[in-house]
Order: sequence, then structure tokens, then C-alpha cells
Amino acid sequence: MANTFGHLFRITTWGESHGGGVGVVLDGCPPRLELSEADIQPDLDRRRPGQSKIVTPRKESDTVQILSGVFEGKTLGTPISMWVKNEDMRPEAYSEMATKFRPSHADYTYAAKYGFRNWQGGGRTSARETIGRVAAGAVAKKMLRERFGVEVFAYVKQVKNISAEVDFNSVKLSQIESNIVRCPDAAAAAKMIRLIEKMRKAGDSVGGIVEGVARGVPVGWGEPVFDRLEADLAKAMLSLPASKGFDIGSGFDGINLTGREHNDPFRMKGGKVRTTSNRSGGIQGGISNGENIYFRVAFKPVATVMHEQDTVDAQYKNTTLKGRGRHDPCVLPRAVPMVEAMTALVLADHALRHRAQCE
Amino acid sequence: MANTFGHLFRITTWGESHGGGVGVVLDGCPPRLELSEADIQPDLDRRRPGQSKIVTPRKESDTVQILSGVFEGKTLGTPISMWVKNEDMRPEAYSEMATKFRPSHADYTYAAKYGFRNWQGGGRTSARETIGRVAAGAVAKKMLRERFGVEVFAYVKQVKNISAEVDFNSVKLSQIESNIVRCPDAAAAAKMIRLIEKMRKAGDSVGGIVEGVARGVPVGWGEPVFDRLEADLAKAMLSLPASKGFDIGSGFDGINLTGREHNDPFRMKGGKVRTTSNRSGGIQGGISNGENIYFRVAFKPVATVMHEQDTVDAQYKNTTLKGRGRHDPCVLPRAVPMVEAMTALVLADHALRHRAQCE
Amino acid sequence: MANTFGHLFRITTWGESHGGGVGVVLDGCPPRLELSEADIQPDLDRRRPGQSKIVTPRKESDTVQILSGVFEGKTLGTPISMWVKNEDMRPEAYSEMATKFRPSHADYTYAAKYGFRNWQGGGRTSARETIGRVAAGAVAKKMLRERFGVEVFAYVKQVKNISAEVDFNSVKLSQIESNIVRCPDAAAAAKMIRLIEKMRKAGDSVGGIVEGVARGVPVGWGEPVFDRLEADLAKAMLSLPASKGFDIGSGFDGINLTGREHNDPFRMKGGKVRTTSNRSGGIQGGISNGENIYFRVAFKPVATVMHEQDTVDAQYKNTTLKGRGRHDPCVLPRAVPMVEAMTALVLADHALRHRAQCE
Amino acid sequence: MANTFGHLFRITTWGESHGGGVGVVLDGCPPRLELSEADIQPDLDRRRPGQSKIVTPRKESDTVQILSGVFEGKTLGTPISMWVKNEDMRPEAYSEMATKFRPSHADYTYAAKYGFRNWQGGGRTSARETIGRVAAGAVAKKMLRERFGVEVFAYVKQVKNISAEVDFNSVKLSQIESNIVRCPDAAAAAKMIRLIEKMRKAGDSVGGIVEGVARGVPVGWGEPVFDRLEADLAKAMLSLPASKGFDIGSGFDGINLTGREHNDPFRMKGGKVRTTSNRSGGIQGGISNGENIYFRVAFKPVATVMHEQDTVDAQYKNTTLKGRGRHDPCVLPRAVPMVEAMTALVLADHALRHRAQCE
Repeated sequence: MANTFGHLFRITTWGESHGGGVGVVLDGCPPRLELSEADIQPDLDRRRPGQSKIVTPRKESDTVQILSGVFEGKTLGTPISMWVKNEDMRPEAYSEMATKFRPSHADYTYAAKYGFRNWQGGGRTSARETIGRVAAGAVAKKMLRERFGVEVFAYVKQVKNISAEVDFNSVKLSQIESNIVRCPDAAAAAKMIRLIEKMRKAGDSVGGIVEGVARGVPVGWGEPVFDRLEADLAKAMLSLPASKGFDIGSGFDGINLTGREHNDPFRMKGGKVRTTSNRSGGIQGGISNGENIYFRVAFKPVATVMHEQDTVDAQYKNTTLKGRGRHDPCVLPRAVPMVEAMTALVLADHALRHRAQCE
Repeated sequence: MANTFGHLFRITTWGESHGGGVGVVLDGCPPRLELSEADIQPDLDRRRPGQSKIVTPRKESDTVQILSGVFEGKTLGTPISMWVKNEDMRPEAYSEMATKFRPSHADYTYAAKYGFRNWQGGGRTSARETIGRVAAGAVAKKMLRERFGVEVFAYVKQVKNISAEVDFNSVKLSQIESNIVRCPDAAAAAKMIRLIEKMRKAGDSVGGIVEGVARGVPVGWGEPVFDRLEADLAKAMLSLPASKGFDIGSGFDGINLTGREHNDPFRMKGGKVRTTSNRSGGIQGGISNGENIYFRVAFKPVATVMHEQDTVDAQYKNTTLKGRGRHDPCVLPRAVPMVEAMTALVLADHALRHRAQCE
Repeated sequence: MANTFGHLFRITTWGESHGGGVGVVLDGCPPRLELSEADIQPDLDRRRPGQSKIVTPRKESDTVQILSGVFEGKTLGTPISMWVKNEDMRPEAYSEMATKFRPSHADYTYAAKYGFRNWQGGGRTSARETIGRVAAGAVAKKMLRERFGVEVFAYVKQVKNISAEVDFNSVKLSQIESNIVRCPDAAAAAKMIRLIEKMRKAGDSVGGIVEGVARGVPVGWGEPVFDRLEADLAKAMLSLPASKGFDIGSGFDGINLTGREHNDPFRMKGGKVRTTSNRSGGIQGGISNGENIYFRVAFKPVATVMHEQDTVDAQYKNTTLKGRGRHDPCVLPRAVPMVEAMTALVLADHALRHRAQCE
Repeated sequence: MANTFGHLFRITTWGESHGGGVGVVLDGCPPRLELSEADIQPDLDRRRPGQSKIVTPRKESDTVQILSGVFEGKTLGTPISMWVKNEDMRPEAYSEMATKFRPSHADYTYAAKYGFRNWQGGGRTSARETIGRVAAGAVAKKMLRERFGVEVFAYVKQVKNISAEVDFNSVKLSQIESNIVRCPDAAAAAKMIRLIEKMRKAGDSVGGIVEGVARGVPVGWGEPVFDRLEADLAKAMLSLPASKGFDIGSGFDGINLTGREHNDPFRMKGGKVRTTSNRSGGIQGGISNGENIYFRVAFKPVATVMHEQDTVDAQYKNTTLKGRGRHDPCVLPRAVPMVEAMTALVLADHALRHRAQCE
């Protein structure tokens, strides 16, 4: 069950970075949604290595193919199987990985858990696994937009200590896509790009924060207790490679306020119940309240660096390892479509769950 | 499915703050574990209102009763049903709630979602729902300790801007329980208690951070991709009432480091693969690496304050509402056993999942 | 997960025949359904031992209590917890069970699986476990009737070689309840009762067939592939104690026809697509087609007989065992509400699943 | 969730008869099992159309490809994705299907449920969907054999009124595969083949019974209450296309016996608890008792016949339809590997579940 996410709008991803390919089966998509590869490819291109000078140079076209679930341009209500072939396999570039555990990667834990691992390019732990999520997320985004009027965005909010000013209530996709770091604050973006370039040259890496936003979510999605909307978002985000933290609305900063300061007062506005502030982040008691949902995800700096580091080999002897070949100085620009995809998958699932029980 | 958590060690909670009671059914507990109410009551007492001057004064004994799944003092392998009767029902104290939505509570979202709600004491959104979790968590903690040698702790790390110094590698339960705020740093604890007292008198409230720790987890628990150990912990924590954020290991602070600085080097130590630092927080690629697991949970200040605040009533008219009666100035001391319980439930589930697939 | 059934309309049962009681948590029931114990008790009374001279004489009132999920007479959308206290505990009557495995009971398999068992009255394997199912099934029946216009019935179709003539298209509850064997064919019922009486006097037992019917199910419920409506019904029925077989529509007898003879032709009737015969049993490709659903469940003769039989004891020595005390010569009259309950639970789940994906 | 089967050893199938292909993702297979396409292809060849004169002539090689989850000839513990390309697409042969609902097929119910369907070759309702099950079932069979010493078989027991004599305790695969109808009783097989040939010439079809057997299952697999081994087998079998019934052990015939006659006495034999008869079918109280498991599945005659039959078209007008092109006079020989696959999937899942909770 580890490779399945969602209950009613449910995906199962498969594939290693080396092998036949990577893919996803999406089960539960409603019928009669117009869908073709053209709806999915743009997000895969945003996720793709080699898209700009500040991300890993791995070159693969990552061309998606829909194998089932679509007929005459519309979804059938049956499973949608999508896959991307693996192309850029250079096992020789990774050969040292066969015998040494990369620090702060999952090589050691996989080997210990399964007694066996595909060391090529990280195998299943490769960021390549997220191709299936992004592909299914594109379908979820389309369904949310067309059937429910919901929009999902993400953007880079912070790289190391460079923080951007962005209004999540009004930010547009065109602003996010206006630069290669996917930060809608142009001035901050320029600084971020310079820093990442510097890191690339130094063979080092940086992390930061991606902010996710959902606008137009109606009141009532989400469930009390365990499947709270924010709990499912937290799980979704912490399931992304390299993520280390999640907070929603006022989040960790909300601690600085007292209850009196923190509460969001209700007021009627345009015939609707609205809150005059939004420290709740659009969710109260696990259920959307009609305000914009916004949250942050912390990503650590990429573990592969072009420097000698202490480690242990597969014979459990001390040794050192220096990253070679391709180098990703910052995962954030490519994490943006991943955060959007996981957000959309959570919301699509809850949209259907709400319909099942409460309509 | 909203009220069920876990796959193999799985709980379903039920109950409103007013009504017959609250409880839990635990399905999947292995057989032949010695178990009685005495194993469970202590954690319920740590969760209970009225336990000290700095928590809500609601007076209930919260006495747990095991209704099934235990025979001659041992678990049968069948569902363990546990419940606590509701006692302290004062519906009159809450009567204004029937017609007004409390700000930053779930009154409005429940009413909108279900078209109907139990307004008494918050109904299902009451912190009383966590009784079932804490009861089942006590069983999980016992199983983890006796069958796997795993210990789970939590403690208050920060109240508003007062932060404690605690070494998660060595902290003991007796230190946590040595004061009413459940902070093992005595000096910080004293300041925290003073601040909470002040808030209580001011009819206001404060939030903060609870830190959770698991020691002794063997290498290999957790799953790649969606059911990563940190993802399941994130979901577990964000499912707790009033929680707004989660981070693990270096977390949000890890952003300040470069990859070279952040990586945890591997070294052999005592015949085992160990890391010389622990920014990963004991988990790599979703799987435990044998180091101590530690993470933080942010809790917002409690929403009920003894001051007039803007809100809307059930007829969708603007109005104001002032909290009356019982007042909880800080949820943190009572959140400690909740964090422990959810941590133990996640680990117990993964312990069984690992055994199923990999042993 | 073994004690949970259903996905969206989902129950978890708990309890042994001896211990605090038996119960069920129903999660996913839509809100605002009028509900009280009076909706549930009648089906429990139909399931109850001691209701007539042809069933087991165990005397318990089996009075149900709703502990949560209902407020001011209506469902809240939160978990509905229901339980029945255990009353008639006579451990001494069963003492031989502590040391000997009853033939064709689950004593041996439970002991082998769990290394430990509650031998009192069969523990969790007792038919008493079905109380939770019947209680939740009563809620499902009510929801199906009020929200979807669907009616669910079951009746005794055959006892040993005595078969009844019943038209499943028109049979009424009053006919089913018109005699103690719950067979709407009065002549057959009289013979059945005589045979069961004879068996009771002989200390022996008989099995037979219960037929289940659902009328008014709209076109489109059920899912292709694994969760076909007939597959979920089959699982539901084979999960009942003492059941050994299931067939739907033409079933095992359909084998005697060729395809040409067996097919159900479509014809328009009253503006609807109808079939002129119903060998499909109301389901085609796993999905309801608007015709009446009907199926049969085979129940073996009850295993407890008042005769010495070969068996093995807990020390794995050959021995003999003679049933003592209470004796149930035929489970069928009490299986009728169980079959109805499981049918209703399957349909309620699929009603919500259909709404989620296809509406 | 409709396209997923199993909990710990879990498959998700995808694909229509026309489109990119059909496939399966198997999640939860333990690591380090030797596996290649050569382990899977033989069962696909047994399932393939065109394998003999008595099955449908559709010609496709059905060559399976493993896309993930296997490295250096061994399973990784990650999802195993397998697929078969579609080749033999002759949409013109099916064109009438676009506008008319085939009697006793799922055309009408799919159209009604989803408002849209892939009419080509039955789309997702095609028996082609079972390719994924048979592929995953081959992995399950291998794991059961190598890790647990369990063997799974199925064979044709009856075609219309021609019944075979087969001893399920000793039957061998070579006997099953010794003739094209897959019936180990040579005399009955010859009669069956003659009857099927006759039906083929007459443009008609016949159904019958497949018997399934599992030998070597240890005591203790299966769960009480809902996930009884026989309940999961019943669901698995009723999820197969054209199946109409299931019974286990004495099954429907057990009704003819009294309890005294029907019970399986226990006796010690070779140091083990054994039963001297096996009317229970190897399962008691939902849990395997160490005896051989055997059960029967009824398959209706194939619905496509080469004769004019009444039906309704997509404009809801009465019309007639005559099957054309390929014709499958009897599904039974090809159902044999499907029954084996589903049996193996159920047992593999319960093997892991038992290990999780009870070891």
C-alpha cells in the first residue's frame, strides 16, 4: 500500500530511475473529463531536469503516454495508466554507488530494509518517481478547475536566507513561470538565481521553502479527526523527496500571538460567511472554510555535493565518497510542480469524499 | 474512513463531548500482550482536564474500561474496544454556542459541511475525541517497548517565546513529568508556567511547540514514497486539534545550511552503521536509519478566550461572542500525551508492516 | 483491518461472547438521517437467540444503545457507536471447551493462529459477533429506503431437502415474519418447522438456503473488476458464520443452459431499458442494471450437536466431546436478518461510491 | 479503489481491450524473490485466446514485459509494473457494438453508470482485463511455492452436464494440462471437448464449473469476521467475468447432511491435528486448518452467440443484434489460470497479513 495515495481519487506510482520507465495508475477519476497528453506534458516539463541552468542537467524528454482510461478524448471512469520511458541511463556514472552509501540519501536504509537495492541513480528513491505524481496531479488540477472552479498554485518562497514577498491571494501562474527559479517576486528571484549559480559552481547545494496555495475551495471539504485537510496535505508534502517540514496558515509563526490576537473573526460579506483575517489558512477543524488555503513546505539542500564526504561502504567499512557527474544545486524550481500535484491530489480526493457523504 | 488511522495497527475513534461517551476500537494488536486498564489510565490522566492550575478545569475522571479483546489479562488478537463515559455535561454553559459560531473553532465548517452539528461542547471537534487516541496509543507504546525495545516521549519545547533546552537523546519521562507544564528544562518550565498563569488571568491563551522523540527504532521501518515514516508522522501530528505545523530533524532551520554542511556522514560505530550528526532526524528516504527520531509540532493558542470577539450566528447575521465558563489558557501540557500516542500509533503500524513485507 | 467492512459506509465490529459486550462503530453514515434505537432493535430481536422454540435458547435481551453520532434524533455525519451488553454468561456450561476443540468450530484454528483464545462461548467466533452487523445493517436499510427507495429482504428458501416457492419480485416482510422459520411459503414453512423440531429432539442440526433480495436499486451501482456488486455480496455472505456458498441470478443452475438460452434480452418498457428475463440477477458486469437483485446463501448445519464426537484436546491428545447445554438445531431463521444486514451494508457502500465518482 | 485487490500483496489492474495495452502494478511483493518474464509468460499463454480450437480465436501473443520492481533478476520490494501491449485491434469487427447493447454483457450498465463507454471489444469489461491478474497471480504462485511451500491449482470440473471425477488431494499440473479443456479426467475431457466443438459449430456457448485447490497452506492463515479466507476467495472468484457462484468444501451439497454427519472430527496424525473428513474445505472460522482448501466456481455460458437476439440500442429503441466475428464457445479452459491467479493473490495477501500480526 506504500505506493498508493488517496482513497477515491487514488494513484499508485511505480518505477525506478533505471529500468523500463516510471508511471502511475490513477483510479477513480470521474468520467467524461476531456483529457489528452497535452494536459499533462506541461507540468512534466516544469518538473524535468535540464530545463534551466540552475537545475540538474540530466537530459530526458520525459514524454508522457496515456495507455488506458481515455477514449475519444474523454476519461472513461476506468483507471488511467500513464508512463514515461527511461532514456538517459548512464550506469557507469553511478558505479561507485553500487558499493558506497551516499550520505543523507536513502541508499543505506533501502539496503538495510530490503536486503537488496537498485543502486542505479537511486532506484525508486530517485526524484524520477515524482513523474507519476506530477502526471496524475495534472489530471487532478484539470478536474478541480473544470468541475469545481478550484485553482492550485505553488511557487518558491525562500532560498536559503533569501525570502520573497508574494501575495498568495492574487499570484498568477504567469508570474510564477516568469523566471527559472519560479519565484513571483522578481527582485528576490534574481538574488535566488545568483545564489544557486554560485552553489552550482561551488559544487554545493541550497534548500528553501515552497509555498502552496489553493483558491476557490468551497466550504466543507475535508474531514474531522484523522483525515483533516491539513493532515492530508502534511502527509502529501512530507512524502516529497527532501522535504523536512510543513506548516499551514500562521504555522510556526502563529506561536508568537496570543489567542485573542490569533483568532480569525467571522463577518458576513457578499452574503457569505467570511473571516476578516486568515491565520487558519483556509481550514478550521480539518474542513475548508471558503478562504484561500496556503501552506509552506521546507526542503533541505540536495544531498549530492561535489565534495569528498565520510561514509560507509556495502561491506560496512569506513570510506569516503565524492559526488560526480550531474549535480542539482537546488531542488526548489522543480519541487514547485510536485507541490502543486500533491495539493491537487489531496483536494480531488476530498472533493469526491465530500460528495459521497454529504451531498 | 475519516475516523480510522493506521493500516495494520489500526484505530477507529468515536464519540462527542456530549453523549454516551468517547472511545476507540483498536484492530490488529498482536495477541498475548499483557494488558489491563492500569496500562492505559496513566496516559489518560496526563491528558485529562483539571489536572493542574494551568489547564482547563473541566472535571471528569476519564476512567477507561476495556470492553473486548483482552482475556485473562492478555490480548486475544481481536479488536480491543475501550471507552470512557461522559460525566461532566453542563449544556447550559454552552448554550450560546447553539446559535453562534465560535471564531477559529470548527463550528461553522461543521455546520456548513453536515448541515447539522452537535453544538454541545464542540461535539466531535472537542479535544475529548483524543481520549480514544491516547488510550490506543498507550497500548501501542506498551507493544513497542516490550516487543521491539522502542521508547516514545514528548515534552513541551516552547511556550510562546520561551524556549527550553532539552537533549532528546537522553531525556527521561521523570524529567518530563517533574512539572505541570511537562517541560524537562526546569528554568524554562518555571517561566512557561508563569506566562500561562498570566494568560489565564487575562482570559487569553498561548501556543507553542511540543517535541516528539522515538528512541530504539531499528533500521528499516517506514516505506518509500507515500507512506514515509515522516509523512505518516506529519499526518498524525496535523490531525491533532490546534496543530499548525510539523518539522523533523533539521526541519525549517535546515534551510540555513548548504548541502555540504547539512549532510549526515556515515561512520561505523560499535559494529553498526551510524551517522555522526543527525540532521535527518533518524529517517532517510522515509525509512528509519537507527538514529533517534525527533520532530516538532506547532500548536496555535487555544481559540476560546474570555473576550468579546466578532462572529456570525447560525442565521448568518453579524454578532459578537465572548467565551464564558471554562477556559484553557494553554493546550500544550495536555498535548504531550497526544503527541506520544500518535507517534506510537505510527510506529506500531510500521513495525507490523515491516514484518509483513521484509521478514 | 479484519474487523472492518465497507469503504465509505464502513463498519468495525468488536466483542466476544463473554466480556463487556459486543458492538459496532459505523463511520460514513450521511448526516441528518432520523435515527434512534427504535430503528435498530427490531432487527436485533429477529437475530436474538430464544425468540422461538426452533432456535438456540440463550436468553439475552440484546438491547442496543447508541453512544455517539446521533443528536436530537438525527445522525451527525460522525461515527455511530452502538453496543449491546453481555448478560447471559454461564462460563461453567462451557468449561469443557477450555480444554477441547469442538469439531467443525474455529476453536482449533484460533488457538493455532493466536496461540491463545477466549474459549468462553466461542469468544469472537460466536454468532454474537453478528449483533454489530445487524445493528449497522438496520441503519443501512433505513438510509437505503429513505434516501434511495431501495428495499432489502431475505427469507429461508430451503431447509435440508424442503424447498419453498417464493416470488422474490413480490415477497413482503409481513409474509417473511408470518412464521418462526421466516419462510414466506406457508406450506413449506410448516414442514421446515417440523423437521427442525425433530432435529432439536434428536440433538442434531440442519442447514439450508437463505435467499436475499434487493428491489429498487437504480442502474449504475457497483464497480467493474474487483468491487463488482456480486463480488462484494459474495464476500459479505461468506463472512457470515456457517455459510458455505453463494450464487446469484441463475447461479449454479445457469450451467444447464446454453448461452442462447441464458441471455437476458433487452426491451424498452415504460421508457426504461429492461430485461425480459433476469438470469443475470440484476447485475451485469458488476453493475446493477435496474432489475431486482436476488441471490442465495448456503448455510451448513450447526456444528454443535448433542452427541459424542471425536476430537483433540489442547494438549494435542485424541479425545471425544459431546455438546451440552444450549443447542441450536437450525441457524437459518436467525441468519435472515444477518443476510439482510450484510446486503444493505454492501448496497449502502456502493450507493455512496457511485455518488462520489459518477454524479 | 475498484481496480485494486489485496491489502499487503496488492494489485491494481488497468487497460481496455482497445488502447495502449493492459497491465498491472503489484505492490507489496517481498524483496529478493527471483523473477523474470519467464515466470509469468506460461500462465499468460494458458489464458490467451487462440490457444486451441475450443476457445475464442482472437490472435495476440500477449507478451508480458516487466517495467519495474526487478533488478538483476530479483524483486526489489518496490512496485512491480507489468504490461502487455494490445495488438489485434479490429475496431470494424465491433462497429455494431457502438450503437447496440449486447444482451447479458455490461454495455448497458457501463453506459448508464459512466454516461460514456469504450465500446471497442468491451473496453474494460473485456476478459483481456484479466491479463494483469494472471501476471500478478504468477508472481503470487511463485512466492507461495518458494517461501511457504504452498501449491495452487485449478481445473475444469464440469461443462454443462458433463462432470469429471478428480481427486483434489493428488491432482497434478501435468494432468490438468494434458488436454485442451484442462480437465484431468481424460474420459470426461473428451466428452467436454466434443460438446464445446458442437456449440462452436452451432454458434452457441456453454458454461460449467472450475474447481480450485490450495495444498500446503499452514494452519492459521485468514482472519476472523470479515476477511475470512473463504470470504476473500468468494469475492476473488465472483470478480471474475462470467462467474455466477462460489462454494467451498461441502458447499451447497452440505445442506443434505445433518450436523452430526457433516462435522469433521479431529484426530492426531503424524504429530499434527488433522480432520478425518474435510467438509470444511480446509478453513474453519475463516482460518486455514492445515487441510487442503478446495472450492468451486460456476461460470455462465459466454454471452456472445452467433444468433439474432432482442436488444436495445444507444438511442433506447428496440432492435436486434447478432454476434459476429470471433466466438468463444466456452470460457472454462481459459478461466482455469484466472482462478489459480485469484486464489494465489488471496493466499499471498493472507500469508503476509498473518506474518504481520501473529509472528
